[in-house]
Amino acid sequence: MLYFVGLGIDQSLSLKSVRELRTCEKIYFESYTSPRLNNDVLTQFSDLTESVKVELVSRDFVEDGRKILEGSKKANTALVCSGDPMVATTHQELRTRAIKEGIKTRIIHGSSILCSVSGELGLHSYNFGRVVTITREPMQYTAYNTIYDNLLRGLHTTILLEWDELHNFFLDPRAAIKSLEEAERDLRHEVLDSSTFLLIASRLGSEDALLCGLTLEELKTADLGDPPHVLVLPGKLHYTEFEALGVLLGRNIESVPDNTRVISKLSKRMVQKYAKKTLEALARAKKSAAQSVESNLNFADVFENVECYTRDSERFLNEGRDELAILSIGYAEGLLDSLRFSGLLEFEW
Amino acid sequence: MLYFVGLGIDQSLSLKSVRELRTCEKIYFESYTSPRLNNDVLTQFSDLTESVKVELVSRDFVEDGRKILEGSKKANTALVCSGDPMVATTHQELRTRAIKEGIKTRIIHGSSILCSVSGELGLHSYNFGRVVTITREPMQYTAYNTIYDNLLRGLHTTILLEWDELHNFFLDPRAAIKSLEEAERDLRHEVLDSSTFLLIASRLGSEDALLCGLTLEELKTADLGDPPHVLVLPGKLHYTEFEALGVLLGRNIESVPDNTRVISKLSKRMVQKYAKKTLEALARAKKSAAQSVESNLNFADVFENVECYTRDSERFLNEGRDELAILSIGYAEGLLDSLRFSGLLEFEW
Repeated sequence: MLYFVGLGIDQSLSLKSVRELRTCEKIYFESYTSPRLNNDVLTQFSDLTESVKVELVSRDFVEDGRKILEGSKKANTALVCSGDPMVATTHQELRTRAIKEGIKTRIIHGSSILCSVSGELGLHSYNFGRVVTITREPMQYTAYNTIYDNLLRGLHTTILLEWDELHNFFLDPRAAIKSLEEAERDLRHEVLDSSTFLLIASRLGSEDALLCGLTLEELKTADLGDPPHVLVLPGKLHYTEFEALGVLLGRNIESVPDNTRVISKLSKRMVQKYAKKTLEALARAKKSAAQSVESNLNFADVFENVECYTRDSERFLNEGRDELAILSIGYAEGLLDSLRFSGLLEFEW
Repeated sequence: MLYFVGLGIDQSLSLKSVRELRTCEKIYFESYTSPRLNNDVLTQFSDLTESVKVELVSRDFVEDGRKILEGSKKANTALVCSGDPMVATTHQELRTRAIKEGIKTRIIHGSSILCSVSGELGLHSYNFGRVVTITREPMQYTAYNTIYDNLLRGLHTTILLEWDELHNFFLDPRAAIKSLEEAERDLRHEVLDSSTFLLIASRLGSEDALLCGLTLEELKTADLGDPPHVLVLPGKLHYTEFEALGVLLGRNIESVPDNTRVISKLSKRMVQKYAKKTLEALARAKKSAAQSVESNLNFADVFENVECYTRDSERFLNEGRDELAILSIGYAEGLLDSLRFSGLLEFEW
């Protein structure tokens, strides 16, 4: 049997895991998936299981996995880590290999940062979109686009920061934000600016955990203390979330801007811009038609349809039917422009 | 001090929570937020804390909250539940109230179903979109649209099912799927059909937990055992996820269809349909123009633009620039239709 045991974010064994671990001949502890906050974390093992030795192992050891798997065939073995053991893909792959080799596996879950951070910040878990990770690599476009995508739906984004145990490297929140600002400069979806409000949860699960909320401007000079940090870029805050943040952050939250206020879908910007231009061009086309000699042609019908479809596009936009909105404004423009292309009328666009 | 303590999905106290709970004069246990799997869950309290009585409380008691808050002002008090204590919004609101009344609060997190289910199923947590809950109410459009939204991005969806402790009511997975099928009938985004592949995790955290993967057709006659169940509608499976499911589900996964294969954005369906119609109408318009007496008018220019913009729309679609694709096809249609509206040409659309 191979156990995958998570100690949760506070790195504490559960009574159930103590019972199961007592049946193990070998316990491996890895700390490459979550920073170890507490040097005493290993002593809880020796306190409780005198017969079992805990061996600290590296990422390579787990990725190689052969010793762990071979051991599991002969006797109960456990791989223990902080948080939840199945968030790390290396553990998932090890489990798949174990099952393929006929080894029984059991997971003892622990609280994960992914689920804990929402509750710590008073935010509702069902208001979160896809999680992102930011690394020190340049061009963090995927993270930026996912945040954009989440914000368009008013959803919050949990942002994990790269942590490399081997080099004791934690990506600083400011470096992560700088990457996002570079992506903003390149992609320009108006996801963030200096007034964007960011939540930072530091050292969760430890005695000196800290929650703060800062604008990106304030972040530049803030003292966040030691890592690890996890960020949340909030979307549309429900009033209960707003209230929770107000008491948790110890700051005036009333003046904090809504991160979704600027962001708009390309479709909305498109329709608003072209609807305005189309109606202006229509006015000029009508003047031109009044002076036209082509009196047997039915300009009025065309003009009426241009106006109707332009109004329709704005209405569809308000109803959230973006595709129909864009189709309608494109159609309206085409109806009008055709009169110029065919040489029937001359007017400015 | 008011503690919010989660027992995790296996309903086990952690060593840390034992230490903290021993300092409490009062412990309240609520079971309305997660089904109690194990009748012995309360005995772990009495085993460990002879001096403290555990009182079972109802949702109303927690929502009212006054006794809990008053007690916390005088002595350490704990509210304990399964899973993670901050997933439930009633707990978040109680915590906000506590802090406002000057009561210190501390959360001892537990593993939540939201984070555990991905790992249990061998799926990557970063491949999940927004979570949904399905209730017994008719017209579960929000859940349906969120699943659609997630699937368009290739993301998996965790589907929580309504659970009402007061009436011992668990929404059956089949009833939940029926609601989604009704939404499919009304909204027709091609999210699901009888071959859609669904993952079901039952009684997670208990000794008789079970994982299965079924098509919606197979679900109709499957024996899932007792609740609670949580569903995952998978999106695009990474090959490692595919492999994990293969060993975990004990079924031939090769033949399982990809849930994202049919789904397409409205924009894609729209452009493909109208591009085809526009080119067909263009051919007829050209024939009509060849017979027209309005020889001084520049039909050729219009026709050329209709064709160009139609081709552009298809190209934009391939480039993932959906808004431009729709705008272009709308424009092309308008250019062509204008010739009919103005009475210049007659042709079928």
